[in-house]
Amino acid sequence: MAGSPSRAAGRRLQLPLLCLFLQGATAVLFAVFVRDNHKTDAALWHRGNNSNADNEFYFRYPSFQDVHAMVFVGFGFLMVFLQRYGFSSVGFTFFLATFALQWSTLVQDFLHSFHGGHIHVGVESMINADFCAGAVLISFGAVLGKTGPAQLLLMALLEGVLFGINEFVLLHLLGVRDARGSMTIHTFGAYFGLVLSWVLYRPQLEKSKHRQGSVYHSDLFAMIGTIFLWIFWPSFNAALTALEAGQHRTALNTYYSLAASTLGTFALSALVGEDVRLDMVHIQNAALAGGVVVGTSSEMMLTPFGALAAGFLAGTVSTLGYKFFTPVLESKFKVQETCGVHNLHGMPGVLGALLGVLVAGLATHEAYGDGLESVFPLIAEGQHSATSQAMHQLFGLFVTLMFASVGGGLGGLLLKLPFLDCPPDSQCYEDQVHWQVPGEHEDKAQRSLRVEEADTQA
Amino acid sequence: MAGSPSRAAGRRLQLPLLCLFLQGATAVLFAVFVRDNHKTDAALWHRGNNSNADNEFYFRYPSFQDVHAMVFVGFGFLMVFLQRYGFSSVGFTFFLATFALQWSTLVQDFLHSFHGGHIHVGVESMINADFCAGAVLISFGAVLGKTGPAQLLLMALLEGVLFGINEFVLLHLLGVRDARGSMTIHTFGAYFGLVLSWVLYRPQLEKSKHRQGSVYHSDLFAMIGTIFLWIFWPSFNAALTALEAGQHRTALNTYYSLAASTLGTFALSALVGEDVRLDMVHIQNAALAGGVVVGTSSEMMLTPFGALAAGFLAGTVSTLGYKFFTPVLESKFKVQETCGVHNLHGMPGVLGALLGVLVAGLATHEAYGDGLESVFPLIAEGQHSATSQAMHQLFGLFVTLMFASVGGGLGGLLLKLPFLDCPPDSQCYEDQVHWQVPGEHEDKAQRSLRVEEADTQA
Amino acid sequence: MAGSPSRAAGRRLQLPLLCLFLQGATAVLFAVFVRDNHKTDAALWHRGNNSNADNEFYFRYPSFQDVHAMVFVGFGFLMVFLQRYGFSSVGFTFFLATFALQWSTLVQDFLHSFHGGHIHVGVESMINADFCAGAVLISFGAVLGKTGPAQLLLMALLEGVLFGINEFVLLHLLGVRDARGSMTIHTFGAYFGLVLSWVLYRPQLEKSKHRQGSVYHSDLFAMIGTIFLWIFWPSFNAALTALEAGQHRTALNTYYSLAASTLGTFALSALVGEDVRLDMVHIQNAALAGGVVVGTSSEMMLTPFGALAAGFLAGTVSTLGYKFFTPVLESKFKVQETCGVHNLHGMPGVLGALLGVLVAGLATHEAYGDGLESVFPLIAEGQHSATSQAMHQLFGLFVTLMFASVGGGLGGLLLKLPFLDCPPDSQCYEDQVHWQVPGEHEDKAQRSLRVEEADTQA
Repeated sequence: MAGSPSRAAGRRLQLPLLCLFLQGATAVLFAVFVRDNHKTDAALWHRGNNSNADNEFYFRYPSFQDVHAMVFVGFGFLMVFLQRYGFSSVGFTFFLATFALQWSTLVQDFLHSFHGGHIHVGVESMINADFCAGAVLISFGAVLGKTGPAQLLLMALLEGVLFGINEFVLLHLLGVRDARGSMTIHTFGAYFGLVLSWVLYRPQLEKSKHRQGSVYHSDLFAMIGTIFLWIFWPSFNAALTALEAGQHRTALNTYYSLAASTLGTFALSALVGEDVRLDMVHIQNAALAGGVVVGTSSEMMLTPFGALAAGFLAGTVSTLGYKFFTPVLESKFKVQETCGVHNLHGMPGVLGALLGVLVAGLATHEAYGDGLESVFPLIAEGQHSATSQAMHQLFGLFVTLMFASVGGGLGGLLLKLPFLDCPPDSQCYEDQVHWQVPGEHEDKAQRSLRVEEADTQA
Repeated sequence: MAGSPSRAAGRRLQLPLLCLFLQGATAVLFAVFVRDNHKTDAALWHRGNNSNADNEFYFRYPSFQDVHAMVFVGFGFLMVFLQRYGFSSVGFTFFLATFALQWSTLVQDFLHSFHGGHIHVGVESMINADFCAGAVLISFGAVLGKTGPAQLLLMALLEGVLFGINEFVLLHLLGVRDARGSMTIHTFGAYFGLVLSWVLYRPQLEKSKHRQGSVYHSDLFAMIGTIFLWIFWPSFNAALTALEAGQHRTALNTYYSLAASTLGTFALSALVGEDVRLDMVHIQNAALAGGVVVGTSSEMMLTPFGALAAGFLAGTVSTLGYKFFTPVLESKFKVQETCGVHNLHGMPGVLGALLGVLVAGLATHEAYGDGLESVFPLIAEGQHSATSQAMHQLFGLFVTLMFASVGGGLGGLLLKLPFLDCPPDSQCYEDQVHWQVPGEHEDKAQRSLRVEEADTQA
Repeated sequence: MAGSPSRAAGRRLQLPLLCLFLQGATAVLFAVFVRDNHKTDAALWHRGNNSNADNEFYFRYPSFQDVHAMVFVGFGFLMVFLQRYGFSSVGFTFFLATFALQWSTLVQDFLHSFHGGHIHVGVESMINADFCAGAVLISFGAVLGKTGPAQLLLMALLEGVLFGINEFVLLHLLGVRDARGSMTIHTFGAYFGLVLSWVLYRPQLEKSKHRQGSVYHSDLFAMIGTIFLWIFWPSFNAALTALEAGQHRTALNTYYSLAASTLGTFALSALVGEDVRLDMVHIQNAALAGGVVVGTSSEMMLTPFGALAAGFLAGTVSTLGYKFFTPVLESKFKVQETCGVHNLHGMPGVLGALLGVLVAGLATHEAYGDGLESVFPLIAEGQHSATSQAMHQLFGLFVTLMFASVGGGLGGLLLKLPFLDCPPDSQCYEDQVHWQVPGEHEDKAQRSLRVEEADTQA
């Protein structure tokens, strides 16, 4: 808003033009390459298919709806905690996720289902695309309030490609197991965003410090996000795991882990809190770390106790991270991240990957029985020993961190292109830069503050 | 509130008395006519049924829950954007929808499942009733804030009957395909409401103009509605389509269409917005036009590209409608509609019907294979050629517009009955007319505005 | 906050220490006793199981997700209506429910699935645990705002055990049918909480009276809870009923009952309301009484008319309870209950139990056919006549009231232990006691009130 208003408006044209260009390009790619797969193409479906084995033609449950609810409602509202950035938080989530859904369908299904010159898509494409949208939104959380929507669109464009490649390398080339997805989603999204945020470091960001907190109602809106993430996380983890036992186990382990991380977060939040009181930031975020930490191992034989222990550890580490590490991250490492994604996705994601290494290393034929084939197919087929599977898991973490760091660095350089529209230091975390805000509510709030001051002086 | 308070209170008695009468009458009709169907009656269920073919006895997924979530959460919160009409928006949605559910069960199941002197109901009855509730809530959006609850109840009573008849004529007499339901739900609900709103034209409505906008938090509440409509729309469209391929395809096409309409809306909203900034009204509404526009064709072989293109077109048309057509609609056509249902449901609904004409006209045995039977049974059986199916689709749109217009006109005359309770021109969009509002929050807001003015003068 | 601040902070240490202790103890019990069951243990699953009969290996729908959504979103947000207690309402719901989930898994699965020295858990364990969490949250509603989180944790510990035992006695020893669960959940939770609240009676509570009401936005947040409870209640009731016809019937009856209770509530709320206007408290709560009242009988042959009539009765009784009985409950019976659980869960729960007595007493082989076996197995097997089943149902209500009253009394004595942290009379319904609240929003509100007063005087 500072500087020449007409130049600012001119720069804001980048968003609609980029939107139109990307939507147009996506549509052309769809027209040329994308076709219905055997589940969605009427002509590829035959009556005869309708045998006992055709359960794949029915909607799986948990389904895309649950994953969608988690991504759109969960991430969207979780970020509404900022007092003056609610429109952008929920609006840009919506818009980034819808772009990521289309774009990631192209990238992932190109890697997985390209044959006969065409990319074949079905309902599973949407679930996979949701996972990619999840990673993009995690990175969004790191730069929330400090980037313009055109920048975010470019970020999603780059991150969507790298997400797809990283996942393909891990799951298909290295034979890593990462049900969904301590490594591929949480670690990748978090470190991509953190490195990007490091490249975009703003020394003068304290000019917008007064807008970086929450207000009472914005915290309640954010709790909508937290609760939806919490309740749909088991479906998120179980949506694409093997049917039957694997799916039940994934859901159950995720629940126990989430339950323990919630209790751990309440305990630690009070312990380290001012006057031994609870901090809403911890509850909104760290309570969910239990979902992240079992992203790799929830389909494995983690056991209910293992899930509880992992969740508790994640919740406590995440809470301590918010209290003690986030300030250091900014002051020492020059990483300004808005939502604490390092605490919610970064550390618990790495912990989850390491937990996967451990649980894979302990896998035996006795413990898994016939289920070994669906959980660790390479061990069941004799291609991997448990130890070598564990080593592959560890290497997968390393690859993910590489992809995320290099990608985040490239993304940062891309977003630093000088002609891109970007809020000035004094206008971060402010909806009015991008939105027509009803009334002059911001001014009102400032007035009432002034009134309050007058009052206390009187 | 103006005029004699005791007379106003006396008029408000219409709501409880009408509620009691209609609930009583419904209960009597239920007692006499309604019976459990073979899926809900214990005695009609036989062990032997439990064969491979008995999947109908399991809950289908996507199920009534998803459709319910869309109708109650989606429509309910979408309309909460008004600053002083949140209680009424979500409260009357709740109350209209619950009445419509009961009433529409009677009407629709009378038309579809009346045999042996009884109306037979099951879980599908609830889904069909939800669709009717959706149409009623669309019409509610056109008259939001300008009608009393007793008037709304009468509107739902009339609209429920006409909805059921129109749908029966289209789907069963004309053989029109309208999965759910560009024509039967969106076009019908929108034009019923618009004509009704035209009959109820208030020349003095600007007396309530200051309450017609949103405030910051009310817009965030409305985004809850938008997001829920967005995520559950594929289930809404797929809930009653043929199982197997048809259902997968319907969901997938709906997604792609929604994704493209969201991006199109962001692009156009900024392009036409003041200072090239985004407008929350567009995002809340036009982003959803992609769900409306594929209501007829999402079960057909629209192809992913077709879905993207249709959604993008709907999003842009809808956004432009909000910007340029809504003002004309009021000034030239004397239609005062609160929520822009013409932009979200009217135009996209008609576009969707025309898209259905086009896609039906292009149907071939090659493109649909064995699936032709479930998508276009009349073509598969040789009763219709593709061209005649297309003509029937077009005629269906015409019939729907007739039913909606005549019905809306009748409804308007009914609601104009002079003894009906109706907020005065200066009390529109105001909860206090119908609700006990906590504190005097409205007054507070006015005070703080006055404080602000004093401040700026000082 | 009153008294010595450092002593208050010291007392607040009880919460984290108790959390850590209980989470540790639970983890130890899990490590020693809890094992995956045949659906979640990879080694217990065999390929050969994957026959026609293996539908149990697929996720049932409605599933744990729906029940979770109801418990966490529904109860959590329903209680956010208090103007200064939103953090606690949604936060403590979250924390009590996650503790109850773990604890109740131990208790209930010990009673139901203890064999070979181990407790075997699966996805059903989570659903059962959610039901227990529901009862705990009902009791929480009775003492909302007047108890500290450490007290609530002790309450959940005791109530979890008694809930499990009561349910076991009713369903397994007495052969009572209580699908879910007018008696086991609603009546038990309500009277447990009411007796506990009676023991904790505070004669000086009017010191906090000014915080006991709602504000405009807090009422809208509460409506999120109401709507989610409403839409997921059929799933809640149907989640564990017999598959096939029973499940369809349960869902359908619950819907009709809810629809009628909503209309009944609107009618009565206006009839008894100030100036014949609606009261948000009634709509938020009494509209849901229809879900409670069919908790026992929704799986029986209640018939659609029966469901309508029961729901209407429950809605009206509940609304009248809010208007006329709640004041008496406090003034005469010295029961201060915050959320009106007696009106929403207590009376409708007892009515629901009595309705179950009636419908069970009317059961015949003709009316239920083959379905009798799944609804009333003891009648089908000839062990009970319909009359004796009805008597057992009535005795089940009596047993539940006993367990609830004695348990609530014991709970009250436990929570009165003098060293437990508990908000003083002047600090009830106040988040700042337990939470770091952003800004000084409460003060701001008071300032603007003062400004308003200054304004009116000027």
